[in-house]
Amino acid sequence: MEFSSKLLERAVNEMSQLPGIGKRTALRLVLHMLRQPKEQTLALTEALQTMRNDIKLCKSCHNISDVDVCDICSNPNRNEAIICVVEDVRDVMAIENTSSFKGLYHVLGGKISPMDGVGPHDLNIESLVEKVKLGKVKELIFALSSTMEGDTTNFYIYRKIQEYNVLTSTIARGISVGDELEYADEITLGRSIINRIPFEATLKS
Amino acid sequence: MEFSSKLLERAVNEMSQLPGIGKRTALRLVLHMLRQPKEQTLALTEALQTMRNDIKLCKSCHNISDVDVCDICSNPNRNEAIICVVEDVRDVMAIENTSSFKGLYHVLGGKISPMDGVGPHDLNIESLVEKVKLGKVKELIFALSSTMEGDTTNFYIYRKIQEYNVLTSTIARGISVGDELEYADEITLGRSIINRIPFEATLKS
Repeated sequence: MEFSSKLLERAVNEMSQLPGIGKRTALRLVLHMLRQPKEQTLALTEALQTMRNDIKLCKSCHNISDVDVCDICSNPNRNEAIICVVEDVRDVMAIENTSSFKGLYHVLGGKISPMDGVGPHDLNIESLVEKVKLGKVKELIFALSSTMEGDTTNFYIYRKIQEYNVLTSTIARGISVGDELEYADEITLGRSIINRIPFEATLKS
Repeated sequence: MEFSSKLLERAVNEMSQLPGIGKRTALRLVLHMLRQPKEQTLALTEALQTMRNDIKLCKSCHNISDVDVCDICSNPNRNEAIICVVEDVRDVMAIENTSSFKGLYHVLGGKISPMDGVGPHDLNIESLVEKVKLGKVKELIFALSSTMEGDTTNFYIYRKIQEYNVLTSTIARGISVGDELEYADEITLGRSIINRIPFEATLKS
């Protein structure tokens, strides 16, 4: 692709670094910005900058937050004896949207995937085990996506916390095997939390 | 969609202002930025800002440019007697990629579309007519898209420059190279038969 302007070329190249955005899409987006008032581009870049610089991860659950301890972890009405273990910030948002869970979360930041070079130590597993050790947690709900990597991660954590007195469950198999959690519809996702089953039961099936 | 962070929410909202980017896609892009080093977001926002603030439109052809008169218009090897009239900057890039045109361009900035509230005075038509009046231009090639709006725009310009001594042509409409004949639409196929070209002419290209 030949550009008539170095500034345009640089903007398109930077935009096309984003996942799922090719050169053509990047060009379309950038030309759209040129047609809009300057203030709109300023608002976008300012929002992205501020977010990237100032955003925090909750010290307890590793969810994205504006403060040190997120709104969910610091909410006294939530049941701190139940922890829902998820891969990603998007999963917290998805479950919160169902309004069917009143415990706390723990965001792993991914799942164990040797193919992608992600091992247990790249994830927030140690801090979860520490929480369990303190003895306040009565139940862990595994809400990882139903894939090979998700199952491996569930099992790894299960082995780590087995010796402590804590119930483990997984969300019900209402989610199709191989589907990503974030694309599930709210009813299915909500029911799968209510109808969670003991983790041991899943080992037999 | 419930966000655990106002900063995240603002970034997602700004991103989803872009055409074809919904809330979910915006969230995916923004979370990707959070996983990448800060420098990458800085590079993106800086490139967009600089582009939006410093980019110019060529004073002659209205193409995007870093200088007052673009590289194409200021190139002495290009034939200034032939002007190719296009809607958009992307069309200039597309034609330049073919390396088959050595004249100059004129970017209208859209096409006449009463439905979208775009009239002739919203486009760079007046400056094109002025160029033709100077008498140096021998031929105008209309390379607008083959739609009702494109045809209207072609005809409007044609009426405006009719009184001056200038040839007008449109790019050939026909079956794309490599396309199967049976899948072509009737209008395109019909036109390609009416506007057939001598076989000898195709042997040279």
